[in-house]
Amino acid sequence: MLKDKIKVLDCTIRDGGLMNDHKFSLRFVREVYKALSEANIDYMEIGYKSSKKLFSPEEFGPWKFCADSDILKVIEGISSKTKIAVMMDVDRVDAGEVSSKKESPVSMIRVATYIKDIDKAIELCNEMADKGYETAVNIMAVSKAADGQLNEVLARLEKKCAADVIFISDSNGSLYQESIEHLFKKAKSCIKSKKIGIHAHNNQQLAFSNTLEAVRHGANFLDCTIYGLGRAAGNCPTELILGFLKDPKYDIRPILDVISREFIPLRKELEWGYIIPYAIAGMLDEHPRAAMALRDSAQKENYREFYESLTGVKKKN
Amino acid sequence: MLKDKIKVLDCTIRDGGLMNDHKFSLRFVREVYKALSEANIDYMEIGYKSSKKLFSPEEFGPWKFCADSDILKVIEGISSKTKIAVMMDVDRVDAGEVSSKKESPVSMIRVATYIKDIDKAIELCNEMADKGYETAVNIMAVSKAADGQLNEVLARLEKKCAADVIFISDSNGSLYQESIEHLFKKAKSCIKSKKIGIHAHNNQQLAFSNTLEAVRHGANFLDCTIYGLGRAAGNCPTELILGFLKDPKYDIRPILDVISREFIPLRKELEWGYIIPYAIAGMLDEHPRAAMALRDSAQKENYREFYESLTGVKKKN
Repeated sequence: MLKDKIKVLDCTIRDGGLMNDHKFSLRFVREVYKALSEANIDYMEIGYKSSKKLFSPEEFGPWKFCADSDILKVIEGISSKTKIAVMMDVDRVDAGEVSSKKESPVSMIRVATYIKDIDKAIELCNEMADKGYETAVNIMAVSKAADGQLNEVLARLEKKCAADVIFISDSNGSLYQESIEHLFKKAKSCIKSKKIGIHAHNNQQLAFSNTLEAVRHGANFLDCTIYGLGRAAGNCPTELILGFLKDPKYDIRPILDVISREFIPLRKELEWGYIIPYAIAGMLDEHPRAAMALRDSAQKENYREFYESLTGVKKKN
Repeated sequence: MLKDKIKVLDCTIRDGGLMNDHKFSLRFVREVYKALSEANIDYMEIGYKSSKKLFSPEEFGPWKFCADSDILKVIEGISSKTKIAVMMDVDRVDAGEVSSKKESPVSMIRVATYIKDIDKAIELCNEMADKGYETAVNIMAVSKAADGQLNEVLARLEKKCAADVIFISDSNGSLYQESIEHLFKKAKSCIKSKKIGIHAHNNQQLAFSNTLEAVRHGANFLDCTIYGLGRAAGNCPTELILGFLKDPKYDIRPILDVISREFIPLRKELEWGYIIPYAIAGMLDEHPRAAMALRDSAQKENYREFYESLTGVKKKN
């Protein structure tokens, strides 16, 4: 059965960290790890490995750096089969600073990259594979890639990259089912030696359905976050994925529980989800940057003007 | 082009009325009508035609009855090509009380029915067609219908019903893309002389994507509501439909405008949208009744207990 091959990768703390400079408290991160472990989620992505030479620990919280010692504080004393994953951005990490797998609590390293940096990503990924980690490459902003360009990138990954999984990321939350079908059929035809994953954004309430559409066309690594937490519109909700899979290996109840206890209160401090400026950015295939700036301004509810500013269209009524 | 055949039916006031006993103020309903008219939406469903012999005007607002005189107050002085639609529930209306089309501001009458009442629905629908209205039948709770049963119902509608459109309604918000594909392929193969529509609920954030999936398989009448307003999890958002269609005949900006001015404030009074107990009801294919009762109680955030109460499963941790 298709479902047997599915792996669920919860990136609540990593993607959510983009909203608060990775400053989630140790208590909160442990609560999430405990819930994911009880639910038997396959992977928890906890943050970025970044170099402290490039980013200041004064400015960013611990999950921007993911020191092994900080990760150990999260997992200590919690019984778990959930593997820890971390993300790396090309050019923001010093590969030499990363310990080898056998000295680290981390199981998987994902390298996130735009298409233009694919060669650097392959190099970084291969280096991490050499250190003994499971590895993945996350191709961001695929909606902006020309079709032929993507073919070339996928062929290069298949041929030269040690990654176990290639993730396709709809960074702008702009893709509809038809594009997902097209992209995953293409990925499936180019990538034979690796698994394929999806990371979807929820600008247009399509993160969950696009994830299911990707599953219909061969994806088996599914990114999600608890209650859809994540920058701007957020991501595909973990609880909906478990509700769909109906796989007895997962238990949805600890996820429901941690939403009640931790995420409902958190929603009063952080804003994410279905918010019109993010929907507009999605439908226009724009980065959420401008929408985030709007939400931080006094014009935060001026949707029409925002739409007109992005499209440059101002028809008379 | 497929899109040219699409008709958008906004049922904000009708479906939203289920949340406040149809008591939206005349001012609010006019604002919605004005926005839909400026956006050039094809139909606005404004409420139910119900008999005052069966429901008390003390208890329910005007959009439970949709007197022609009340509808005239809504549309007066507003330039519009948007047609007015009303819904009827089998057994809740006195057909004799309904005026003929030529005396009424109403263009379309939709008869909503469960499968068990299909013969009554056909009779009522034909009576309304005889009065000169465009007509539709809305089949509720299709997720609960046995496959063979639905075949029979569709065949009967095709043969005996005057309706111009047959709507398929995912009342519990439980259907995934695959079921939508199956249902609409089936409907398309049985219904040759009429159009097919979809009414989707948003329990699992699938209302929009299921509407798009239905379009891929032949639906051309699309139900939606502004900002997804509607009972419990609400419906497919009108603004997302317009963003997808990118059809210059529609203008999304008046919709964005009315969301800013009217729906953001309204969200403080009425609760709808992605709320975990409604998601749970959707994933378990249950009517949202129990979830609505939970949200009215002191246990409103006890998601885990709610899930356990519906499934009867209580595994030890």
